[in-house]
Amino acid sequence: MRETFTDYALGPNPDDPRLTERVSGIDHEGRTIETSVVAERPLTIFLNRQEIVTAMTIGDYPDMLAVGFLLNQNMLRADDVVTAIDYDEDLEVVVVRTERETDYEDKLQKKTRTSGCAQGTVFGDLMEKFEDINLPKDAPLKTSWIYTLSAKINATPSLYLEAGAIHGCVLCHEDKPLIYMEDVGRHNAIDKIAGYMFMHGVSAVDKIFYTTGRLTSEMVIKTVQMGVPILISRSGFTAWGVDLARQAGLTLIGRAKGKRFVVLAGQDRLNFDADPDAVPEEAKRSGRKAGQDERLKEGTEV
Amino acid sequence: MRETFTDYALGPNPDDPRLTERVSGIDHEGRTIETSVVAERPLTIFLNRQEIVTAMTIGDYPDMLAVGFLLNQNMLRADDVVTAIDYDEDLEVVVVRTERETDYEDKLQKKTRTSGCAQGTVFGDLMEKFEDINLPKDAPLKTSWIYTLSAKINATPSLYLEAGAIHGCVLCHEDKPLIYMEDVGRHNAIDKIAGYMFMHGVSAVDKIFYTTGRLTSEMVIKTVQMGVPILISRSGFTAWGVDLARQAGLTLIGRAKGKRFVVLAGQDRLNFDADPDAVPEEAKRSGRKAGQDERLKEGTEV
Repeated sequence: MRETFTDYALGPNPDDPRLTERVSGIDHEGRTIETSVVAERPLTIFLNRQEIVTAMTIGDYPDMLAVGFLLNQNMLRADDVVTAIDYDEDLEVVVVRTERETDYEDKLQKKTRTSGCAQGTVFGDLMEKFEDINLPKDAPLKTSWIYTLSAKINATPSLYLEAGAIHGCVLCHEDKPLIYMEDVGRHNAIDKIAGYMFMHGVSAVDKIFYTTGRLTSEMVIKTVQMGVPILISRSGFTAWGVDLARQAGLTLIGRAKGKRFVVLAGQDRLNFDADPDAVPEEAKRSGRKAGQDERLKEGTEV
Repeated sequence: MRETFTDYALGPNPDDPRLTERVSGIDHEGRTIETSVVAERPLTIFLNRQEIVTAMTIGDYPDMLAVGFLLNQNMLRADDVVTAIDYDEDLEVVVVRTERETDYEDKLQKKTRTSGCAQGTVFGDLMEKFEDINLPKDAPLKTSWIYTLSAKINATPSLYLEAGAIHGCVLCHEDKPLIYMEDVGRHNAIDKIAGYMFMHGVSAVDKIFYTTGRLTSEMVIKTVQMGVPILISRSGFTAWGVDLARQAGLTLIGRAKGKRFVVLAGQDRLNFDADPDAVPEEAKRSGRKAGQDERLKEGTEV
């Protein structure tokens, strides 16, 4: 993978045969076609001897997904020592082992009571930590970076372009995308990045998050919790996402397409060094969405 | 609402001031703008005296969301008698009261162990019921209905067109959209429709589901469980969604845009009565996505 995408420390691998499946069907003219669809499989995460959750995932990087999920649920602390991560592909189980005895049973109790099952977060608990976080005020954001990042990320070969129906999250530094994760749920993609950062000791203070998904409360909470001061999306906002970003001092940028974007929180970090009129509009046949539409259309006729 | 959208028994109400919020920010040229963002608020659902879950929702139809969620989680049975639904707007709590003593404590136990928190479903339990369901084999689907439904739904004034960042689910009969629900999570939108169908005794066997979201295992399971034989989406598929649809005999149609669509399961129900070449492509400035892009752009300059 490193060989193919030299800009990325870790990037999508659309050629991995486990991540997509070829299926046959018919198109709008009744012709038999064959097309690619993304994998979606269960992964059961254990913390030491306790079963925590079964997540639906494309199944790459189960170790990072498990660690990142536990971190973002506050079941694992930043100073915890992970002694082993055991993954059994046949059983679809990953076990994260830690030095410290964790208090996951309390957390699990809390989850039963307050979990936004519909949302995928242990909400009450996340908020406790959320209020203690101070994001670095001096993290700058040049508008030219937004344009360069969008252009690079949209042109990266990905499962999205191959099979659609998937979200992407990218950890970036200035105008360079570093780690690009995809998954059927955007919370999985962001959890895998959190796992990578923990396992590789990556600092968050000078990083930027780019996501293809919507800027909901969940995405804002996870970003803030990970200590990343800037969150950019091609998609839109929810009102609570905006509220939380303002409370936490997170720079929140949405609807970033072509030369356009909207900043609804943390606008002080922006440095307008680019001329928007020099940025090409996303052409119908060349943007992220368009590239995918063009590629997926009705599949390959067989 | 009924007055405005005479085709719908229940449709989106983009003018409801509780569902969107006007927020100010800056655009890509640094200009101060004001734009609409969708509401996202917690709703805690009780079944009798037991707290079940806190869902994140736009907050319309809390009664239908609660009933539909409980039904789709198999915590409420089709033959249960709901004696009252109490909603407290200030507390953001809805209580569904039933005649029968439910076995929700067992279910809750199961949820703790197996819930795809990342997915929003009590998976192990849903599958039990899934395997017992027989969808009606003789439910026909004319391709002209697909085109008419898409055109009608995309032209319906909605929160999506107003503020973006939202999913839509529509219950249809032949070429007529009947119930159009929107929510920040597509599982909420489909749960609200399930709640409506239960509360109004709507039969599922001759209905069609249209969704803006992806055709994941969760969407397929909910649709099958509700007894609806046909599921159509503008978005793509996951491999497991396709597998489950084939097992259940669900007709699964994705990537439905303009004249194009792809059928990956249950193709026997299709009747190709329309000429695809007579269907206009979705123009950049007139399709659902395009209409929204055009409207949201950078917000309104102030």
